[in-house]
Amino acid sequence: MYEGVVQDLIDELGRLPGVGPKSAQRIAFHLLQADPVDVKRLADVLIEVKEKVKFCSICFNVSEDDQCRICRDPRREQSLICVVEEYKDVVAIERTREFRGRYHVLGGAISPIDGIGPEQLHIRELLMRLGDEAVTEVILATDPNLEGEATATYLTRMLGPLGLRVTRLASGLPVGGDLEYADEVTLGRAFAGRQAAT
Amino acid sequence: MYEGVVQDLIDELGRLPGVGPKSAQRIAFHLLQADPVDVKRLADVLIEVKEKVKFCSICFNVSEDDQCRICRDPRREQSLICVVEEYKDVVAIERTREFRGRYHVLGGAISPIDGIGPEQLHIRELLMRLGDEAVTEVILATDPNLEGEATATYLTRMLGPLGLRVTRLASGLPVGGDLEYADEVTLGRAFAGRQAAT
Repeated sequence: MYEGVVQDLIDELGRLPGVGPKSAQRIAFHLLQADPVDVKRLADVLIEVKEKVKFCSICFNVSEDDQCRICRDPRREQSLICVVEEYKDVVAIERTREFRGRYHVLGGAISPIDGIGPEQLHIRELLMRLGDEAVTEVILATDPNLEGEATATYLTRMLGPLGLRVTRLASGLPVGGDLEYADEVTLGRAFAGRQAAT
Repeated sequence: MYEGVVQDLIDELGRLPGVGPKSAQRIAFHLLQADPVDVKRLADVLIEVKEKVKFCSICFNVSEDDQCRICRDPRREQSLICVVEEYKDVVAIERTREFRGRYHVLGGAISPIDGIGPEQLHIRELLMRLGDEAVTEVILATDPNLEGEATATYLTRMLGPLGLRVTRLASGLPVGGDLEYADEVTLGRAFAGRQAAT
């Protein structure tokens, strides 16, 4: 429809997640008018990110070195591992400043419908870490959805025989939410997980 | 918040139109996991589009050559010029296959609020074309909004003394729409522009 390379650009942009054909067109036209220096910077950072960004050889977190900042930090507790699905979960948890241990990034969650089984995730590497390192507690922090729950259940079963403490993040009412708008599963979990008032 | 270059990528993506911080993050994480070949292809096409795509020296349409495909085409009527705001309007009109003349792309519309006056648009170049070329009719096909109307009014006034036929696209009910849902301006224009039933 459009001149050769403009159509190529629209096609490439349209492959990005959440970018439909109309948005791809809109972004392409913006780039056509944009300062070539700005477009070059975007192109460069795309190349750079694929060249520089590796995954930590210990925990599979995103890293510019062989080991990520968190695994290299001697102040982080060696005895605690928090298992998450993705890099963005690490960032979200770091933002809370509540966790001083280390991470293990699975690279997704078990989802038979998408053809992702335990062998596609970094579960074998987690077991190897538990053999090598002085870990006493594994915190399962997968997403509270179907795939995340399945993954946590699978890991609980796998880790059971190792004699570690295996915990899961609390389920309950989100802070700042309204009780009446909570779905029944969340509300049910909030009851099941109730604690002594202090 | 994220490791150096990942944050740079999120920042650059966030500058694109319609890409908010959350979408930028989502796209960045997608690219982190993506095949380097695919990311390279996107980076290459960004560079290529800025290198290759120029603007037609006659009509300011997007073109990979000094003159665009339409201006080079001897079968297009030389006597008709359709004035549009942007390249995407050319594509939209070409899609109808109703117009066999040539275009003039203004590069926007008059919008004092955005600091765009007639001198920021390719209006001077349009007047030069009308002096040189054997044009008998100029069709004003700016957007039917405030800026487009202002631009059309301005051009009508400018072109009046030249003794050309100056026309505007018909305003009226969109085909396939419901009369009851038409806004009053559109419906008013549909009345004003009513034609003999055939």
